[in-house]
Amino acid sequence: MSSSDSIRDHIDTHRDAWLDELNDFLRIPSVSTDSKRADQVAVAADWLAEKLRDAGCGEVEIWPTPGHPVVYGAWRGAGEAPTLLVYGHYDVQPEEPVELWDTPPFEPTIRNGKLFARGSADDKGQLYIHVKALESWLQTTGACPVNVVFLIEGEEEVGSPNIEGAVLEHQDRLECDAVMISDTIMFAAGLPSITYSLRGLAYMQLDLTGAKGDLHSGSFGGAVVNPAEALARMIASCRDPETGEITIAGFYDDVVPLTEAEREQWKTLPFDEEQYRADLGVDALLEETDYGVLERTWARPTFEVNGFVSGFTGEGSKTVLPAKAMAKISMRLVANQDPDTIMDAAETHLRAVTPPGVSLEITRMQGGTPWLTPRDHPVMQAAGRAMQRGFGAEPVFIREGGSIPLVGVLEDLFDVPSVLMGIGLPDENAHAPNENLDIDTFYAGIASAAFFFEELAKVE
Amino acid sequence: MSSSDSIRDHIDTHRDAWLDELNDFLRIPSVSTDSKRADQVAVAADWLAEKLRDAGCGEVEIWPTPGHPVVYGAWRGAGEAPTLLVYGHYDVQPEEPVELWDTPPFEPTIRNGKLFARGSADDKGQLYIHVKALESWLQTTGACPVNVVFLIEGEEEVGSPNIEGAVLEHQDRLECDAVMISDTIMFAAGLPSITYSLRGLAYMQLDLTGAKGDLHSGSFGGAVVNPAEALARMIASCRDPETGEITIAGFYDDVVPLTEAEREQWKTLPFDEEQYRADLGVDALLEETDYGVLERTWARPTFEVNGFVSGFTGEGSKTVLPAKAMAKISMRLVANQDPDTIMDAAETHLRAVTPPGVSLEITRMQGGTPWLTPRDHPVMQAAGRAMQRGFGAEPVFIREGGSIPLVGVLEDLFDVPSVLMGIGLPDENAHAPNENLDIDTFYAGIASAAFFFEELAKVE
Repeated sequence: MSSSDSIRDHIDTHRDAWLDELNDFLRIPSVSTDSKRADQVAVAADWLAEKLRDAGCGEVEIWPTPGHPVVYGAWRGAGEAPTLLVYGHYDVQPEEPVELWDTPPFEPTIRNGKLFARGSADDKGQLYIHVKALESWLQTTGACPVNVVFLIEGEEEVGSPNIEGAVLEHQDRLECDAVMISDTIMFAAGLPSITYSLRGLAYMQLDLTGAKGDLHSGSFGGAVVNPAEALARMIASCRDPETGEITIAGFYDDVVPLTEAEREQWKTLPFDEEQYRADLGVDALLEETDYGVLERTWARPTFEVNGFVSGFTGEGSKTVLPAKAMAKISMRLVANQDPDTIMDAAETHLRAVTPPGVSLEITRMQGGTPWLTPRDHPVMQAAGRAMQRGFGAEPVFIREGGSIPLVGVLEDLFDVPSVLMGIGLPDENAHAPNENLDIDTFYAGIASAAFFFEELAKVE
Repeated sequence: MSSSDSIRDHIDTHRDAWLDELNDFLRIPSVSTDSKRADQVAVAADWLAEKLRDAGCGEVEIWPTPGHPVVYGAWRGAGEAPTLLVYGHYDVQPEEPVELWDTPPFEPTIRNGKLFARGSADDKGQLYIHVKALESWLQTTGACPVNVVFLIEGEEEVGSPNIEGAVLEHQDRLECDAVMISDTIMFAAGLPSITYSLRGLAYMQLDLTGAKGDLHSGSFGGAVVNPAEALARMIASCRDPETGEITIAGFYDDVVPLTEAEREQWKTLPFDEEQYRADLGVDALLEETDYGVLERTWARPTFEVNGFVSGFTGEGSKTVLPAKAMAKISMRLVANQDPDTIMDAAETHLRAVTPPGVSLEITRMQGGTPWLTPRDHPVMQAAGRAMQRGFGAEPVFIREGGSIPLVGVLEDLFDVPSVLMGIGLPDENAHAPNENLDIDTFYAGIASAAFFFEELAKVE
């Protein structure tokens, strides 16, 4: 029997047992935002550590952090073969609003082949495929084709404040040749998808100050520059409304252009723009000349107002000429834009359009480097073959518009490629009521993860 | 002895007694916003009613309203002579922040010729000059040259919610030939000033809605129109930043142009633009081609953002693409702009610049008609002569940028001119700590008010 067949047999044999295990995991309300549930987060960490031991990891540790702990596990029996670092998170989003769940969020329930529970897709179910993949190799052949290191944090849903520190502290234990993350979605049910690029982020706060204090709009209106209006004009100046392009000088200089191959493949994806628009409840989408929706959200940088506030915003009317106005703005970046360079360019633009009569303070809040591993990278192609085998279907290579800052951190630290092999489905409801994981996809995911070990071992 | 001399003598003789009376009035904390002080507001109404009786008013009544009462008084002994309606308010602003007062707000104290107390300038001290002016005529000559009706409300500082209702209910008792209000300031100490125009108001709330709910700016940024950005662009579109002019079509159509005489007189006013700018704490003022500061604040309409809010405005960063954005905007109007016409024009403009992908809801919050009585109107000129006699100095005719909605109501109802003969000084600190009234100006105000009765009687 080939290793492929024995892995498949092993998975088939353990379907029910592993589902029971996952259900145990999902019953632990490891909500990292809720300080009253810190003990449950710790319970989840302990539970996962035990499962890593059961799976065969020779090293298992729980690393304390100033917040919730990191679970570390490693199987290093593959000698000179490559080492794969699997990153994931065992904490979950809060379950509110509970009343919108059809079944209780921490009582896993199966309906129509889907497992409903908070954390089923994000990320307990997804990270668990790699634990079972390792276990399948060790229990069937006694060895895994690659060394496997698990780095599973408990604070992803609160912005991962301590994972970078933990990584730096334990850098020597985390040395690897590739990084695997399953925390994304497939483009459609039955369509295995490998994500090879994420957008980065440059986030700034703008504080505009006019007169010493709020003024009476009757007495002073006409003589004093209104910082709310000035900020509005400054924001408006950042985009050409005709083309949809950002007007900040140099903004697109480092953007890696889409290849014709990417554009052609994406055109074959089952994407219904009309349905997308209708689902959003809008009569039209934001346009950018020459780019379709997937291109705009995956491969083009953006300029976004995340929030603004000024003056009187309560009920009724107050004739105030405000002294201050604030906006939070952010730009999603694509390879090879650099967050600092882009923030410099944005600052130069914004200062140039700040009118006399108001003063601008800029606070740089957050920066994240965009990530792109070329689709033809051998590790990416290995992942493609693994998913092809696991799902029995040709995988697609896609991008995502969001950001996972740790991907950039790990890549910079170890100079290795990452692969995002998510098994969520578009209707998984992550962060929302009725979060769910498709059960057949879960098993196909375990197989794909197991085959990826084998395919990765073949990469020179 | 001429009536002029006997009036002056009477005022001189009663300086201390009247100051004591005013002090009694000022000791009553008639703060209309504070429901726990409703009894004190009532005490002030009773006190004033008694003083109107003492002054010689044959009719004195306290009219209850759903809020604080209106004090009505009338002396109608002048037969066919004109009737003057004196409007004012006996309620005061809250005294907070108390710690910034040099002496207690409700213990009137004299320093450097100024009487410090809450309400000294706004409006107890100013309204009281007319009471003492009537009394002076009745006690010296036994008659006043005109009939005088007092309409003194107790809710001006809470937006006058009930005065229009009271006016309509008692319309027959309030019939008049002219309206006199002392609730404004003189352009400078020693410079008697008559205000002949106020700006009106058109206040609207704009609610812009994009997608069904807030979105993740990573997943959707680039595909979805951001209502905060759209609102910013819409706001920016309302002004030509080069000329400072409002770009709403038809906005200036009904504006009565400034006359050369007005512009020339205002140029002679002791106005120091550099000091004005420094006092505001700004490095530059809002400009409009061809108009100076006084012209812009007194005689030109404005477009103002009174407030806006959208998305995330807390500490830190949140990568949200907001579903909604709201702005409160208002336009100060000048004669002969009509609030409804202007709101129609603004709505047409704003709908035209609303981009696809968002929907706009407009709520009309408040409208007030601008007021202008020509400077050469006989009643205005009568006021000028009265102040010339009362102050012994040439008065100036000025405008104000704010609004007093009741002026428009009374003018519309009775089709009569109004005169704003304020005796506050620019440093009166109305609505602020250390509110004060210049005592010599108070006496000159009483004389001016008394002479105005005489001058009004001479008008055709």
